[in-house]
Amino acid sequence: MDERIEAHAETLVDWSARIERGDDVVLAVADGAHDLAVATARVLGERGANLLSLYRSDEIQRAYLRAHDGEFDTDPEYQRALYEHADSVLFLGGGRNTAATADVPGDRLNAYGRARKAIREARMDTDWVSTVHPTRSLAQQAGMSLPAYEEFVYDAVLRDWEALAAEMADLKEILDEGSEVRLVGEGTDLTMSIEGRTAVNSAASVAYDSHNLPSGEVFTAPDSPEGHVTFDVPMTIRGKRVRDVRLTFEDGVVTDYGAAVNADVIGEVLETDEGARRLGELGVGMNRGIDRPTDSILFDEKMAETVHLALGRAYDACLPDGESGNDSAVHVDLITNMDEGSRLEVDGEVIQRDGRFRWEDGF
Amino acid sequence: MDERIEAHAETLVDWSARIERGDDVVLAVADGAHDLAVATARVLGERGANLLSLYRSDEIQRAYLRAHDGEFDTDPEYQRALYEHADSVLFLGGGRNTAATADVPGDRLNAYGRARKAIREARMDTDWVSTVHPTRSLAQQAGMSLPAYEEFVYDAVLRDWEALAAEMADLKEILDEGSEVRLVGEGTDLTMSIEGRTAVNSAASVAYDSHNLPSGEVFTAPDSPEGHVTFDVPMTIRGKRVRDVRLTFEDGVVTDYGAAVNADVIGEVLETDEGARRLGELGVGMNRGIDRPTDSILFDEKMAETVHLALGRAYDACLPDGESGNDSAVHVDLITNMDEGSRLEVDGEVIQRDGRFRWEDGF
Repeated sequence: MDERIEAHAETLVDWSARIERGDDVVLAVADGAHDLAVATARVLGERGANLLSLYRSDEIQRAYLRAHDGEFDTDPEYQRALYEHADSVLFLGGGRNTAATADVPGDRLNAYGRARKAIREARMDTDWVSTVHPTRSLAQQAGMSLPAYEEFVYDAVLRDWEALAAEMADLKEILDEGSEVRLVGEGTDLTMSIEGRTAVNSAASVAYDSHNLPSGEVFTAPDSPEGHVTFDVPMTIRGKRVRDVRLTFEDGVVTDYGAAVNADVIGEVLETDEGARRLGELGVGMNRGIDRPTDSILFDEKMAETVHLALGRAYDACLPDGESGNDSAVHVDLITNMDEGSRLEVDGEVIQRDGRFRWEDGF
Repeated sequence: MDERIEAHAETLVDWSARIERGDDVVLAVADGAHDLAVATARVLGERGANLLSLYRSDEIQRAYLRAHDGEFDTDPEYQRALYEHADSVLFLGGGRNTAATADVPGDRLNAYGRARKAIREARMDTDWVSTVHPTRSLAQQAGMSLPAYEEFVYDAVLRDWEALAAEMADLKEILDEGSEVRLVGEGTDLTMSIEGRTAVNSAASVAYDSHNLPSGEVFTAPDSPEGHVTFDVPMTIRGKRVRDVRLTFEDGVVTDYGAAVNADVIGEVLETDEGARRLGELGVGMNRGIDRPTDSILFDEKMAETVHLALGRAYDACLPDGESGNDSAVHVDLITNMDEGSRLEVDGEVIQRDGRFRWEDGF
């Protein structure tokens, strides 16, 4: 087997999920992730963990949801019990068609999601980790050949995570102590408060409250944004490609928006609820293994020399005890380049300039 | 999708597993059974059942078991809870290599099995059904092309099960009322007692205590065999091909054995324990969709014009309340042709002759 797949599995089990002897592990395998599942099973066996494999196939899901009348049972006990007793859930993404569920009616999907709140919560209460195996389908989504995409994925996943975690700890400290963040760049001048908020050092490990592999971002929950921002990294939102999304904030709320392509999707998101017009996340991408957008949020938002902001729900981990933060049914990330000509300031001090942090360039 | 796959899924869900709205269903999908899983998910959605899919991959199992030190945890709660709360488990067999686990040490497999007794029992306490999707690997095992093998499988699975169940009920009645069965053919003259035993009409439905699709056999638990029998249907036992196995019984116990090929495997089976030298099952194959052996016990033992006997464990369903029947760690089926020149008698009356039952030929 490709040694990179073996290394991916070891990183997932040891660095990310911190699996130990006797841990009850659920391996949730997408229908293109077989090879990574085999490699992961080997590592789980070596560690003496227990193993149950689920089959997460979009084609099965599509067939089931389309055929169902939409009156779903609430949180079937057999599924809830599985997750309630599990220690870790490892999601191995990587399907064979990113559009496999494109013809499932949205209200069916929503009804299914609503009926499974307790199951989802039980799953999220485990030491879960989400990663992907590089498939042809994901390579296609990224506009890349399979070998080039494999190289991209393993560059992102097989990092020196200890070293990156230490670097990210520096930024976390600055954000934790800071009161105001300012982003400046072409089409962007935005300030927001981070007073009293706690940043997460998302180092691709449950030991850091980080559940994505790859990760490599520091994020917090901003408040009271003022100004305007342009998101020049293209993305797919609700199945539609958007480019150059622009948002204007006044008194913490979006008061104007636009986009070079498909602005109506942003309009739809903003209409969801009150919280969808406010910010839920400010994240700083620091993974230098990710050197280009690939139309996958798992990778794009961690890309070095980018910052992302999310409309909607804030993460509890960033909020003081007892404070609920911005609430919304959505959490939609948008990404802006922070390379040449951009800067990130905290309380008036420049922390990042032209894509480089001050500890990199010594300013 | 191939209409035969859709029909297979409907037969599985409706005839075999009797799935109803709200049933908690586990779909255990082998790594070559994707298409049948998609079709089954559609039917489960239509019926309003709940669905969780497991991934049963021999390659994952091999990697895990080989890497593990063999000190397995006993019945991990998260897996036991899943099955204890489930109503039905549908096993969709059909892998990509029937030898995928050939290099897993036997003692590792046995230790894994011993550590999962309660999980296995919980699974068997559900309305479980085992079937297979025709894969290239199984076609190869059968010595057939894929299209020919597909035709074979669907001939076996897509029967008029109501009609076959009615025919099998006639044989069940004869066996339930009978005291002694005699098999006569070339190299075979064997009598055994079936006094007080109850035959199972295995009509491929949980409504008939039958958990295989296809099925199509009537079986009971015989006792006190006397005589000799030749099993002329070739089989693979413990990975080895056997042909023309001969057994001699005296006072209910095997006293002599032989085979044209690999007789040592039979010797190994007989050495397992005391019960391995006695009979656990007499089964009469009645599925006329199965017209040739394909080296798969799921099909072979149901083949019309054959009878099979099993060394080892008897099924509880055949025994009077409180009687335990033959006990053993093994249950090894061996099959003999009952066509031209053979006959099956119950209490001296000929029930089957030259492969035809008396209700078919009116003798």
